[in-house]
This record gives sequence, C-alpha cells and structure tokens, in this order.
Amino acid sequence: MKTRKQASNISVKKSARSTTRKPARKSAKGGAKSIIEPCSLDGIFRPRSVAVIGASSTKLTIGRQILHNLIQGEFQGKVFPVNPHADVIHSIKAYPSVLDIPDPVDLALVIVPREHVAKVVEECGKKGVKGVVVISAGFKEAGAKGREMEQKVLAIVRKYGMRMIGPNCFGIVNTEPGVNLNGTFGKTFPKRGNVAFVSQSGALGEAIMVHAQEAHLGFSMFASIGNKADISGNDLLEYWANDPGTEIILMYIENFGNPRRFIKIARELSRTKPIVVVKSGRTAQGAKAASSHTGALAGLDVGADAFFEQTGVIRVDTVEQLFDVASALSHQPIPKGPRVMIATNAGGPAILATDSLISHGLETPQLSDATKKKLRAKLPPEVNFSNPLDLIAGAGPKEFESALKILKSDRRYDAIVPIFVPPITVDPSEVSQAITDGVKGGNKTVLSCFMGVRSGSEGVNVLKENGLPVYRFPDAIAKTLERLVWYNNWLERPRGSIHIHEVNSAKVRKIIKKAESKGQREIVGAEALEIVAAYGIDVAEYHEAASVTDVVSLADKLGYPLVMKINTPRILHKTDVGGVAVDLRTADEVRSAYESMEKKVARHSSDEDFSVVLQKMIRGGVETVMGMTMDPTYGPLIMFGLGGVFVEVMKDVSFRVCPVSDVTAERMIESIKSYPLLAGFRGSKPVDKQALMSGLMRLSQIVNDFDDFSEIDINPFIASSRKGESCVVDARFLLRDKGETK
Amino acid sequence: MKTRKQASNISVKKSARSTTRKPARKSAKGGAKSIIEPCSLDGIFRPRSVAVIGASSTKLTIGRQILHNLIQGEFQGKVFPVNPHADVIHSIKAYPSVLDIPDPVDLALVIVPREHVAKVVEECGKKGVKGVVVISAGFKEAGAKGREMEQKVLAIVRKYGMRMIGPNCFGIVNTEPGVNLNGTFGKTFPKRGNVAFVSQSGALGEAIMVHAQEAHLGFSMFASIGNKADISGNDLLEYWANDPGTEIILMYIENFGNPRRFIKIARELSRTKPIVVVKSGRTAQGAKAASSHTGALAGLDVGADAFFEQTGVIRVDTVEQLFDVASALSHQPIPKGPRVMIATNAGGPAILATDSLISHGLETPQLSDATKKKLRAKLPPEVNFSNPLDLIAGAGPKEFESALKILKSDRRYDAIVPIFVPPITVDPSEVSQAITDGVKGGNKTVLSCFMGVRSGSEGVNVLKENGLPVYRFPDAIAKTLERLVWYNNWLERPRGSIHIHEVNSAKVRKIIKKAESKGQREIVGAEALEIVAAYGIDVAEYHEAASVTDVVSLADKLGYPLVMKINTPRILHKTDVGGVAVDLRTADEVRSAYESMEKKVARHSSDEDFSVVLQKMIRGGVETVMGMTMDPTYGPLIMFGLGGVFVEVMKDVSFRVCPVSDVTAERMIESIKSYPLLAGFRGSKPVDKQALMSGLMRLSQIVNDFDDFSEIDINPFIASSRKGESCVVDARFLLRDKGETK
Repeated sequence: MKTRKQASNISVKKSARSTTRKPARKSAKGGAKSIIEPCSLDGIFRPRSVAVIGASSTKLTIGRQILHNLIQGEFQGKVFPVNPHADVIHSIKAYPSVLDIPDPVDLALVIVPREHVAKVVEECGKKGVKGVVVISAGFKEAGAKGREMEQKVLAIVRKYGMRMIGPNCFGIVNTEPGVNLNGTFGKTFPKRGNVAFVSQSGALGEAIMVHAQEAHLGFSMFASIGNKADISGNDLLEYWANDPGTEIILMYIENFGNPRRFIKIARELSRTKPIVVVKSGRTAQGAKAASSHTGALAGLDVGADAFFEQTGVIRVDTVEQLFDVASALSHQPIPKGPRVMIATNAGGPAILATDSLISHGLETPQLSDATKKKLRAKLPPEVNFSNPLDLIAGAGPKEFESALKILKSDRRYDAIVPIFVPPITVDPSEVSQAITDGVKGGNKTVLSCFMGVRSGSEGVNVLKENGLPVYRFPDAIAKTLERLVWYNNWLERPRGSIHIHEVNSAKVRKIIKKAESKGQREIVGAEALEIVAAYGIDVAEYHEAASVTDVVSLADKLGYPLVMKINTPRILHKTDVGGVAVDLRTADEVRSAYESMEKKVARHSSDEDFSVVLQKMIRGGVETVMGMTMDPTYGPLIMFGLGGVFVEVMKDVSFRVCPVSDVTAERMIESIKSYPLLAGFRGSKPVDKQALMSGLMRLSQIVNDFDDFSEIDINPFIASSRKGESCVVDARFLLRDKGETK
Repeated sequence: MKTRKQASNISVKKSARSTTRKPARKSAKGGAKSIIEPCSLDGIFRPRSVAVIGASSTKLTIGRQILHNLIQGEFQGKVFPVNPHADVIHSIKAYPSVLDIPDPVDLALVIVPREHVAKVVEECGKKGVKGVVVISAGFKEAGAKGREMEQKVLAIVRKYGMRMIGPNCFGIVNTEPGVNLNGTFGKTFPKRGNVAFVSQSGALGEAIMVHAQEAHLGFSMFASIGNKADISGNDLLEYWANDPGTEIILMYIENFGNPRRFIKIARELSRTKPIVVVKSGRTAQGAKAASSHTGALAGLDVGADAFFEQTGVIRVDTVEQLFDVASALSHQPIPKGPRVMIATNAGGPAILATDSLISHGLETPQLSDATKKKLRAKLPPEVNFSNPLDLIAGAGPKEFESALKILKSDRRYDAIVPIFVPPITVDPSEVSQAITDGVKGGNKTVLSCFMGVRSGSEGVNVLKENGLPVYRFPDAIAKTLERLVWYNNWLERPRGSIHIHEVNSAKVRKIIKKAESKGQREIVGAEALEIVAAYGIDVAEYHEAASVTDVVSLADKLGYPLVMKINTPRILHKTDVGGVAVDLRTADEVRSAYESMEKKVARHSSDEDFSVVLQKMIRGGVETVMGMTMDPTYGPLIMFGLGGVFVEVMKDVSFRVCPVSDVTAERMIESIKSYPLLAGFRGSKPVDKQALMSGLMRLSQIVNDFDDFSEIDINPFIASSRKGESCVVDARFLLRDKGETK
C-alpha cells in the first residue's frame, strides 16, 4: 500500500473511482470493532428502479426537472413516472399510481402537494418500496398543521419498514458508475468525485452544485435532508463511513438532532475521513439566560468550539470556505506541518500571502543554503532568492517549473503556494502546465493563487483538471491551510484516555434525592462539598455548626484564621448578602459573624434550620474555577479558568464537551490566557497540574454519571504547588428542572 | 443640495460624472482653510499630449500594449510614439527621440530598459515635459546598482522641475471625459466611476482592473506608484482631495514613506471622502525587539489598528474585501447604524447571513407590528413574517418587490439585505428587476446576495448596472456592513480636542541634556519623575537619600510604611536584583534595605554615586500603566493598561498614535477588557477617569515636544477614586540612539 509520504499531489483521474486521497489515518487497530454501526441506506442511494410520484410534462416545474435529471444523468436503473393525469411524460410511459407499476420499485421520489403525500407514501409501503425521498414542502417547517402531517407520513414510513429522506428537501445524488442517480431538481449536474455532501437546507442545494462545479469538486453522494423526519445527518455519516467511494464528508448543518451520537460517530470517523462542517444558527443561542458563573461564561459558540476541538471535525464559517477546504482535501495531501513556501511572479500579492499566512498561524521559513544553491543554478540572477521566492514579473513557465521541481523535495516545507498574476507577455495556460509538471511526484500540499484571471479561464482549468486547487486570493489559501494544519495536528495528537475512577455514586444519589425531596433547586455548602469529595476530589476541611456555642468551640479547636459561610441553598449570592466572612482571627469575631449571619437568614427565610460551614482559611496557591453548563446543542460543557477577576472581568476560560480525557484536561488548563500564573510566574512555583487535571476529569465523571444537574460551580478550587494540598473550598450544584427535556 | 437622507440608493448613471455618493460629511466649517494643501499633478493626469518612449510594434510587449491602450481608450490628446528604430508604430508616425517631436509634450510614458531611462528623462526635461511615468523596472527594488540609477533619474526630474510616477510601475489612468487617459499596459479597460485607486504594487495592476470590472466598479483615476521615487501616495491623496470626480479613494500600500503626513492628510480627508486601505507587509515588523513593557506589548499591528481607529481610514485585510467595500461605498449610502433587515427566498442562506451579521457586531431587529401588518396585506400567508423575512422558495419578483417597497421606509432598519437563491421556477433577472424597483427611492444601504448564480450572469448584472452591489456569499455582506458602520461611527464621533498644556519643557530639556552628557541610555528614578511632574502629571511624594543616616531620618519624618528603590539608570530590572523594597515598617527595616541595596549596586557598578528614592507606600487605588513605544511605520504610540498581571500576562492594553485627544484618551481607557475594574467593580468606587485622561494627553504632549525618547514607561500610575489623589509612582525614559534615523 502507498503511504501518505509517497502519495503524489498530482493525479489525472483515470477512472471515476481513482482518487489521490488516502485515508487520513488508519484506526489504531485495524481489526478493532468500530463504534460506528453499519447503516444501510442502499434502498435509497443504490436503487435499481425509481418512481417519480408527481412527475410532470410542464417545463420549469420540479416534477419535470427531477425526471429529466434522472434520465439526463443516465440513471442505470428504470425510471417510472407516476401521475394520474398523464399517460406519458418525457417520452416515458406514466402510471396513475405506484401500485400500477408492473415492476418492483426500490425508491420513490415524491413531489405531490403536501396533502397527498401521506396517501402516496402509504401506496409506496404497499408496493414494497424501500425508500422514499419527499421533496414536497409545507410540513414541520410550516407550523402545527404541517408538523401533524409530517408525523402521519413518518408513521406510515415506519409501519412499512421503509426509510425516508425529507420532507422539504432538494433530493439526493449518487454518482457511482453502476448507479448514476441524480435525484435532484437542479440545473447543475454534479460530477463524480470522492466527496459526500449532506445539506440541511434545501435552498442551498443548487448553490452547492454551482460552487462545486466551479471548484472542480466531484461528489460521491449528496443528500438534502430537509426536515430530517426519519434519516438524519448521523445516519448518513454512518452510511458513508462504509462507502469506499467517499473519502471526505461535507456538512451544512443548522442543528444536531442528537449531539451525543454525533460526537461519538464524528470522533471516530474523523480519524479516517475528514469531515468539514458549516454549522449555521450559531448566534441564535446567544440569548440563553444563565444564573451561574459557568453558565454566564458559556456564551456564543463555546460549545461548538469545544465540540470541534475534541472531535477533529473541521469547522468552517462560510459555504465559500467549505469549498475552499474541500478542494484541497479532495485532491491534495494533508500538510504535515505549518511551513509554507511561496513562489511568485508578483511581489505585492506575495506580501499579501505572507501576511495572511502568518496571521493564520502558519510559517514561512527562509530558504536553506542548499536549496538556494540549487535554485541559483537554474534561475536567472535577478530572482529574489528568499521566501517568497520572487521570480519577478518576466517569469514564465520555465522559471516556475524549475523552481517548483527543486522546492517540491525540500524537507523544510510542508506546503507550496505558487502565485501568478499574468502579465500580457506570458500565457497563463503554459504557466499552469509548468506548475503541474513542476510539482508532479511531490508530497507537499500545493495550493495555487492566480490573481486577475477570470474563473473558468483556460489557465486555471489546466490546474484544476490536474487536481491542483486554484484560489483567486491568497487569503483563501491561508484560511484553507490553517484548517488543514489544525486537522493534521488533531490527527497527530495523542487520543487521550478517559479514566473511570472508583467513586461513591450511591452517596451522591442520596444527597440529590434528599435535596429533591425538600424541593431544593440547588445543593450548596456541606452537601455540595460532600458530592465533590464522593468523587475523589480533595475538599478543604470544613465543619458545620448550628449554634453559637458549637461554632466558637469548633473555631478554637481548628485554630485561626477561619472562613465562615452560610450553609443554605436559599441564598444564591452569599457574598452579596454578607453570607461569607473571611479572615476571622478571634473567638469574638467568629461569634459576631455567626450572629450576623443568623439574622440575615432570618430575613430571607424564617422557617429554616440555620447552620454555617467553618473552614481554615487557605493561604497561598492559585484560585481556580471549574464548572459545568448545559449547551442546548452540544450537551454538558466542562469549564476551567482562574478565579476572581480572571473569570468575572477577563472571561478567560476554556470549555470542553463531555467526557474530558486526560489529554483534553491538560489542553483546557494550558489554553487559558492566564496559564502562566499556574505554570510559575515571576519566581512562584508551578501548581500541581495533575491535581487540576484529575479534578476536571472527575467533574466530567460526575456529569456523566448524573444527568440531574443543569449547572455546576466548583469555586474556588485552590491549586497548590505542593502535591496533595490542592483542594476545593466551595461548590454549588443546580438541579435540573425534571420538567425540562433532556 | 440633496442631503444624505434624501440620497436614493438607486442610480442609473446618466452622465459619466453623475454619481450617487454625497460627501460623507462636510467639514465643520465649510470656509475653514483645509490642512490639505492643493497639489497639482495635472501635468501627469490631464496631459494634452503623451509621448510613449519605448513604443513598440511587437504584439504582447509592454511598449505596444500601452500605445494600444491609449488609442483604444480614446485619449483626447495627441499620442507620439518614440523609438529610434521605427518610423511608424501602430499606424502612427514615430520619432527617434522626444526632442524630435514638433509639438509640445505634457506627459512621457517611459518603457525603455533601465540603462536608457536617465538619458530619455533628461531629454524630456529639455523638451519641457511636465510629467514622466517610468514603467521600466530594475531600480531600487533590484539592489544597489538600481538604487543608484533611480537616484540619478530623480535628480534629473528635480533639475527640470518635472514630476515622476514610478519607476517600476503599471502606469496611470484618468477616465475624465475630456481626458480619457489609459496609460497602463493591461488587457482590461477601467470604466468611468467615482473611485480613485493607488497601488504600490505594479503586479496587482491587472488583477485590480479585472476585479473592478467584475464588481462593476468605475474609476475616476488610477495610479500604480511603484518605487515612489518622487510622487507618493500622500501626493495623490492631496491631489484627489481636490478632484470633484473622486468620491472614494482605495489604496494598496506596502509602506508609508511619511506616516505623520499621511495621518494628517487622512484624518482630514476621511471626513468627506472615504479612504479604504489594504496595508500589506503587516507581519514583517513582528520581530522587532523591545526592552520596555510598552515596547514588548506593541506587537503585530497595534500601530496600524491605532492609526485606522484615529484617522477614520477604513482598513480591510484583503483585496477581495477592498472591492466588496468599495462597491458598497461607490453606489450606496453609508448606513446610519447597525440594524439590518434580511428578505430571502431561502431559509439556510438567511441563517448564515444572520450568523455572520451578528458575529460582525451588526443587529437584526425583529419586525414592528406595524410593518408586519403592512407586509401581511401584500404577501401570501405562508411567508415567515420575522427577520429574516422568509418569502419561501416559491417567492418571485412580485413578493420581493412588495416586501422591499414596505421595508425600504421602515425606520427600524439601516440596511436591507435581499437574499435570493434561484429555484428553476423563477427567472433571476425578473427578481433582480423587482429588487431594483422595490428599493428605488429608499435611503438605506442595500446589499444583495445571489447564491448559486454564476458571476456575470444576467440576473446579477441587472442589479449591478442599477448601482446595487451583489455578493455571492452572505459573509462578504456582513464584513462590508461592519466596515461601513465602523466608518459611520467614526464620522459621528466627536472629533475631540488636543489640549496644549502649560508645561515646563525647559526643565525636561535640561534633564535630557544631563543624561546625555553622562552617556546614559535611560532616565529613571527621581529624574524620570521630575520629567513627569514638569508636564503637570501628579507624582507620588518621593525623596532622595544618599546615606544611611539621611535615609533613616527621612523615613522617620515621612512615617511608615515606605517603599525604597535604587536610584540608578545602570540597573534595568530593579525588582529582579533586589533594587525595590516595599512595606518597610521600621527604621531598622529601612536601614537594612538601604545597606543591602548599596551592596548590590557595588556589585553592578563600583564607580557610581549611590542613592535611593524613598516614597510613602500608597494603599488602595488601581495600578495602571502608561507608556510610549516607537512603531516603525506609524511613529510613536501611546499605550494604556492595568498594571501587574493584566499587562504582563493578559496583555490587556490599548494603543493610539500621537497626538492623543480627550476623546481618544477616553476611548483608550474604556477599550481595555479590564476596564470594569476602573469603572467600579463589586462595590468599589470608580476611579478618577479625568486624571487618567489628563495623564495620557500630557504623556502624548511630552512625546510631541521631545523626539529624544524611543520608549517611555510610566508604571505604576495609581488611579484613585478620590479627585487629586491619582499619581505616578515610577517612570522610565529610554533615550533614542541619535544615530538612529527618525
């Protein structure tokens, strides 16, 4: 088998199935059982016969166009138009209903008005159809009545054991040579390639086809899944995981039906097939109200960021970038690092490219002396032998080819960016051919920039046809390379392990039950610390006291200075109402603090047993904060940051989705901006990072074991430089409203 | 005169001179003398006759193409080819030299090899030519020999009082009807419009023409200025300031020859003509070493950010964005605020647009009940009456026109974004026409998105021809609107005033002289504080002492606790060598601190007079830091931030170019992330912001009055909540190496 290193970045596609991409990485154990379950949607994507229910003879209607596309696309099976009002459509015999078709039907494309959909789907069931694609709109997306109709259709689909795509979609495509199914109603025909695309938006369908064509991007399969009544994006991921023709998966997603399942599938699949996603509807969640630290900090997009960070799914912000990244992934090797060499005939654009590369975290190392020497032997002396290699304006095919032949095997670089702005004296097609010949056989990522060349012009097409993506602006290349290098780093990062610790979950269950039985919405004080301790996280010594006598004798026993806190879930912000007293140095101070708090609680809730928690005041160490908040899209997020102003003013925190592995815990600690304060700043010793990592992983385990909490704050978690001295001082668990949907 | 509010966003260009844009804002006083000096480059841009020196008959050469372009572009004057080896070129009589031309010559375009340039320019001088544009390359950009030749050519230009553009450039354009000068050698012809463009890169020339054409962007003038031996970007700004045909200025700049002059011109000109700039070479300065806080913090791009913030120059990162913004500015009114209404026939793209708008700081307010009612009366019930207004997939021209006619006069919105993804059932040209008709007469910024439509297709062109910019992706619209709203905010912001305070500059001069005479590179301790005090910034009481007896008696007099610091410029990082002692509480502690410091200094430099500074220890207040660093491109930058970890770890600082006005000082204080700690956090009182503002403005004045400093740190400046109690505790001035060029 060819290894990645040997993979060439030039391929002239010989057969429709040949592609240059190799799997990003083989699973650690080839024979290990995959967690991705095979899911056969062959009835939909590989039908031997298709009925078009609602086919029409009228041009510029969907019912006509979809039939036309099936035929024009040379579908390898039989097509049956269904329309009770026509005998022949598009020169093909038509049938009044699917039940009248004499042959077996695998797939039905449904384009009838919404009120007829249930009836025709029922007929499909009776006929033994395996899959239906419901193009028709007016269902869930159109209000209550539509939602009801959609449920009815789904029930029929389930009753007959069929599978359904849609309703409210743009159709499906499978370009496999034995199938050739174009079941869309667009005007643009997808060509064969190694990219599978799932779009939640039907309206984007045609736009996707047009942009793919311009990018010379070929599809293995395409599905517009519309309202996702039955088949979801997750189902397609599982299906494509086992499709040999699919090597890259692109997704346009507005929401995740089941984010936990998506995380599970994507984390695995990303190892072998890169997944690139535009997730829209990002900002809609911004308004979520939150009552805890962790919740308030989990603003816009942190769930998404955490999700992508951990699953290796390549996130892009725009449809344009989706195609830019896909073009590179589809034809070029993934760069092994961030080092980029630029070869150009134009100074200005090369400076723009350098700027853009550097500001996207890439590097442009200078030429080695050895390479310089080789280049000098082949190029005219007025060339600027540096990075960018400026071949100057007169540079033609010869200069580009000579330079690239040398650069393609320079180990100092991971990617090459040829830039060309055509002067009138040089033929762009010849330069394209020279670039193609120059990089042939190399194993670096080659992304070219042709500025001032009209798209679709011959010069550009020579490159595209040879599997060399071309961009019009250097910025797009920098953004694309940044994403590819990010993905490569993810692939190379150790996978991390998720320890399952011995914990006392029975105790936690008991505490939750007790709180619920009392109608509490929160667990705070001693009980909150008990939960933390039950999961093996060290807790600062604490003691409860419920009378002046007790508290004073306890204080004398513990020694001073002390911290006293109200021990009640009734009061949300203890500090604000004087429910926390620090640095108590005498028995008198302890007594007066106790009495003052007792009064305050009396003001808030008279019917409650009053008690306080007494702790030794901890000096030294760094105050950190951990927590959990519930993201509406990605589920529970674990948070980490430094305490006080760092969290409250600077919002300097990191988030990850559950579960948190050791590698993830370490990265989330190291990724905050204030990390130097933990690593040892101005002579202070570094804190015990293992204790913090263990804390985060155990918190993640609490979240995993109990879905009773909507938010958790562990604040402060004092990180000490001395082993065994880091501990939690306070914690707070918000209980989920059991009426809420999970 | 039409005011902006009445300006329509639709214009069918009637004459070449008619444009929709109105000056962004009239100067506060119309009659006030502008600081921009008129600069006539008419000899270059409005010649009555042009000699093409180095004209050629050979196709695909620059000497042929440039002649061809002059004729093809219908230049309104006479063209004289000059070539000693030809009698006729391009059917026009040729002359051996410019001196042989019988008529007067205003402008010479020079395309001969570099070694002949000096000779032909000399002949131009003798001939009485007013301006030369040297296209030829191989000068400064090609090393020492070329630099020398360029100097020689420049000397000749100066000798004869001519002006020169280039060398090493793409040529110039003036589309004025009476002139029609296309003096470039590109293949693409610029059309007439209200945009002037200056490019420092010749190679970008053709690319600029192609992209402008695709964006339907017309030029008033264009100049590729190459090596800027004589005429710079600043000269062109001054020239275009007085050109009635130029309403918008675009710049591609790699470096500023004279940034202070650019700041002066741009700040003024931006009030009436928006300037949009791509500044490349941003990251090249990243490696600058720095020895002070302020210097180390002034990393990448802060100078540029400050510069754009203060001059109102609209910065864009890419050439693509330059055209996106220019298209909007050229044809559409500047939005009065950030509120955007989306009208769409496709859900997915509208969600993408919303995401992108929100994440670029724009707003998408919901429809008012009144507007909803009006819309309901005109639109089918299945429309989703919200923002985005989803007209659903079937929407055609009628729906778009009805909706836009209502929305264009809704005061809730500043901009409208129509989004259209063409389904097969709808003709895009008709929708384009409907959008055009729908928004006619409105005063909002209208930027349309047509997805999945090939560029140059009829549907898109209808809009562009009507002055309605069209974008292929919603992201480009969001980025464009963000820039326009930023510019509008700059226009609306009070201009601020720069106070000139009464200060004791003579004293500062004396301190500098003394330090220089001693060969010091720094001024620290008491002398540094004296400089600060001389400029009217309050300084914490400090006293020098040079013996144990003195220091102890001084300490007793001042009272405890005290801070002691070594008073020497020899030691850079006082804290690191034990040169700072805080919280000294007894005479004994003072004595032992003094003795310990004396020993340390002895270790560092034995020949020096030893002294310490003694200060009362200040409690309370917030530690801030001010400073100045020298940006290689933008000159001195003033810095502000909070002290300690906020500066050192969080790098939470703001920068501005000099001079700093009151408005600017306030904005730089409020723009740091930790500003809440100054504004009053968790019950603490807000600090005296006026004292900080005054400190920053006075620091700016020091920098303005003395160019002796390369870096300044005022650290800490204690900001107190009590009036009159804020003060500087320590300061440090680095002296510029007078060998350095300014």
